Amino acid sequence: VNAEDRFVDAVRALLPAGGPVRVGPGDDAALLDRDAGMLAATTDMLVENVDFLPDEAPDVLGRRAVSVNLSDLAAMGAEPEALLLAIGFDPRRGADYALAITRAAAQRASTFGARLVGGDLSDAPVTVLSVAAWGRPAGPPLMRTGARPGDLVFLTGWPGEAAAGLRVARRGAAGLTEETRDALLQAYRDPEPRIALGAALSRQGLATAAIDVSDGVGIDTGRLARASGVRIVLERSGLPLSSALRAFAEQEGLDPAELALSGGDDYELLFTVPSSGAGGVAEAARALRLEVRQIGRVEEGSGAAVADGGRLRDVTHLGHDHFERAS
Amino acid sequence: VNAEDRFVDAVRALLPAGGPVRVGPGDDAALLDRDAGMLAATTDMLVENVDFLPDEAPDVLGRRAVSVNLSDLAAMGAEPEALLLAIGFDPRRGADYALAITRAAAQRASTFGARLVGGDLSDAPVTVLSVAAWGRPAGPPLMRTGARPGDLVFLTGWPGEAAAGLRVARRGAAGLTEETRDALLQAYRDPEPRIALGAALSRQGLATAAIDVSDGVGIDTGRLARASGVRIVLERSGLPLSSALRAFAEQEGLDPAELALSGGDDYELLFTVPSSGAGGVAEAARALRLEVRQIGRVEEGSGAAVADGGRLRDVTHLGHDHFERAS
Repeated sequence: VNAEDRFVDAVRALLPAGGPVRVGPGDDAALLDRDAGMLAATTDMLVENVDFLPDEAPDVLGRRAVSVNLSDLAAMGAEPEALLLAIGFDPRRGADYALAITRAAAQRASTFGARLVGGDLSDAPVTVLSVAAWGRPAGPPLMRTGARPGDLVFLTGWPGEAAAGLRVARRGAAGLTEETRDALLQAYRDPEPRIALGAALSRQGLATAAIDVSDGVGIDTGRLARASGVRIVLERSGLPLSSALRAFAEQEGLDPAELALSGGDDYELLFTVPSSGAGGVAEAARALRLEVRQIGRVEEGSGAAVADGGRLRDVTHLGHDHFERAS
Repeated sequence: VNAEDRFVDAVRALLPAGGPVRVGPGDDAALLDRDAGMLAATTDMLVENVDFLPDEAPDVLGRRAVSVNLSDLAAMGAEPEALLLAIGFDPRRGADYALAITRAAAQRASTFGARLVGGDLSDAPVTVLSVAAWGRPAGPPLMRTGARPGDLVFLTGWPGEAAAGLRVARRGAAGLTEETRDALLQAYRDPEPRIALGAALSRQGLATAAIDVSDGVGIDTGRLARASGVRIVLERSGLPLSSALRAFAEQEGLDPAELALSGGDDYELLFTVPSSGAGGVAEAARALRLEVRQIGRVEEGSGAAVADGGRLRDVTHLGHDHFERAS
């Protein structure tokens, strides 16, 4: 038995058998029994030095790669079924490195009822994780296209914390309490995909549109507005600003609301709901013990703006644009 | 509209709409209608300087990334439905580079009745393509586990040509005719996934086990033998050796049969069939105008060997082991 096959054996040993998975890792492809119905499918690639910091711990990477993919499924209202994980890495890191990533990914998937069913390994000059995930919308799928004028705009969680956490990871946390530092680092390293809320919104037909906020509240609000052919106006005073984010902003001399609008890596759900559905959203949030805040309204028109007192400012470029950063 | 969203628009424009795809690129995930039944799913990552040569043309890369993934589905007897493509690349290559990869991938997928339904982009120091693909087994799926003593072992195509093509691409083709050079380069750059044959074997219940030969006939024969708990003995004299491979081997002073046993990147199907099914295999091969050669037999025992006259030699390590290469 060669080294690569020993690796596959090790992976098989750590994945549970049974359920819809007829064949997991170790054959040419995974085999799953499946019911009829719609399939939501997504892929996200994470690259060292770009999407995560150099020498990040393998278990952190495995969890995070799964979470960011599940966040896309959450934004479709889908409950995840299965994932594939391809890992490129410097072979000098050794097989245990890839195995630690895989183990963490499988555990993270199982937390959300999903299964890691296959993968691939390649040598690479830096670590690259590419996950593909699919699942079933719990009800009518949540797309970016259904927002209508008059809808309310909601956002989960604490935007900006992850971007602050990235800066802390890069430059340290001088002047911050340990609690603040840990909260920010965790927001960056270990995002929580909003699977349960997305599924509830889909199942109950509450949301007219949804997107997961990965590049920044501004840019992603702009994307939803554009896909739906509407205008979205956010209330600057309505943005949820955590105490950790406020402490970080004060320390850095920055505006926490700006961080919340432009910080990437949030993996929160931004969604639109007819005003009649506001009570249903509050109830779902309570049931899930999840922070869900109304942050704006849908109007006729185009673009995304933030209202600050009487002033309106375009926010469609606030955040991370993969191509812009390059140029 | 920012640059990244313009890219997504360009990708949407080049993908056909309709069919089972409700939502393609541009939302958080693709949405597909699907029938009940089994799903075969696989992922393969290709990394520049490792799995392909530096500065390979983007259309070649897009085609190849799809083909090597479809080859895994072929080895399950599955007909491909949909693919996801994540691209990491140096942003200085520009968006057109990623678009050319995507266009070629979409075209290659459609040749096999499959659809590119989503993707992701990331900056990366080298080009990394990660494809995930899934489809439906045409009949009982072909796994690596079903070979039985007495079965015959078949192989499609011309193993070793791709490995020779890689050497030609790296070091030139001094002394080879243009025809030979082109045949070898094409075998490396543009492998043909054996979807139709895999589906026919599955539909007709002809094969007891199958694997796609990507790391080398030796190592992959060993994998099938191990998964099935059998021994496989290949006949050295039975290996299909193309005239291009013979010409290359002569020029290099190498043994063409050794190249055929150890060369990687073949993406041919190796499968086992009860002796009663040999006629069915021949018929399927004729119908598909595909070279399919009986190259060995399944026996009781373990391991994979090649018989050369009276001598038996272990071949389970002949080929490419991702971990061994590293150490």
